[in-house]
Amino acid sequence: MTSERLERQLAFILEIDKAKEVLRNSLLTESRRRENDAEHAWHLASMALVLTEYAPAEMDVGRTVAMLLLHDLVEIDAGDTYIYDTEARKRQVETERAAADRIFGLLPPDQAAGLRALWEEFEARETPESRFAAALDRLQPLLLNFHAEGRAWQAHGVRKAQVLAVNTTIADGAPELWEFARGLIDEAVRRDYLPE
Amino acid sequence: MTSERLERQLAFILEIDKAKEVLRNSLLTESRRRENDAEHAWHLASMALVLTEYAPAEMDVGRTVAMLLLHDLVEIDAGDTYIYDTEARKRQVETERAAADRIFGLLPPDQAAGLRALWEEFEARETPESRFAAALDRLQPLLLNFHAEGRAWQAHGVRKAQVLAVNTTIADGAPELWEFARGLIDEAVRRDYLPE
Repeated sequence: MTSERLERQLAFILEIDKAKEVLRNSLLTESRRRENDAEHAWHLASMALVLTEYAPAEMDVGRTVAMLLLHDLVEIDAGDTYIYDTEARKRQVETERAAADRIFGLLPPDQAAGLRALWEEFEARETPESRFAAALDRLQPLLLNFHAEGRAWQAHGVRKAQVLAVNTTIADGAPELWEFARGLIDEAVRRDYLPE
Repeated sequence: MTSERLERQLAFILEIDKAKEVLRNSLLTESRRRENDAEHAWHLASMALVLTEYAPAEMDVGRTVAMLLLHDLVEIDAGDTYIYDTEARKRQVETERAAADRIFGLLPPDQAAGLRALWEEFEARETPESRFAAALDRLQPLLLNFHAEGRAWQAHGVRKAQVLAVNTTIADGAPELWEFARGLIDEAVRRDYLPE
């Protein structure tokens, strides 16, 4: 017989299969189809393994990876909000909180509390782990966008000043990567991927 | 200017975007489209966070998660081989080794060696981390298959004895989860998802 504890863990595991259906605005570099939340989270977690040395402070990379794996699960209920849509992002806060209650709440209480706390930590962006995680969460779409010739920016009429503003999160969480990112944004303008 | 080290790290990060294009035989529970390698790796890594307590020995969950994030990268070159196609799986070994040389070789040498070693560890299945990782790598497709009413099994004419044989890996890496898995396989037969 399957214990109630394992039943709850499996319910959560099946529920998060839906993150594979939540579409984002970034396009994949090869097929140019839209990326989904599961792919995005996997890419970020893998980047954290490779880019750890750019974290500005002593950091537990395992916590960062765990945080990145879970950071967008709330979008199963709340949907993805485009980073440049600042009004929608304000309204999003309450919806995401309710989603966190429901989705993490599927787990046994001790695990629900633990993973929920990791998500809250990511949102608050106060620890080295969450600041580095947030930097990667900006850097990855920037990379994909550049290599898809700026199509997502063009589709939404995004301009250089907005890209710079949104991506200063990288400066905070990974200063060396911000130098690279700024160069990439300048190059995107030079190549007409992004309007000045 | 971007350092050669960061250039190599970014080349790897862009290369692995292609894992999102490698299709597997499992179907997603909601849309019933085929899962890809990035989604699969993300699901396994998340499962490792939730199911750690079922590992049969003391284990570093961070290593397990890292291993799971990377375990299928070789399929960018080698493609996915269906678990029930035992002949193709034998031929696969050399192809995957060459793929590992190329893909991990994009990284700076110290990181290439480190991640390559993690992949080798996963393949050798001798440590608690790799045995638990392998158990999850079997359990997840079994779960998806069951919840997609066995369509992937039916499409490939797979029978119960094969499913039991392939999934004994779960018994080795996570005995308590194997009890659950065996029950799920029996239930799949009762529901006619899987022929006896």
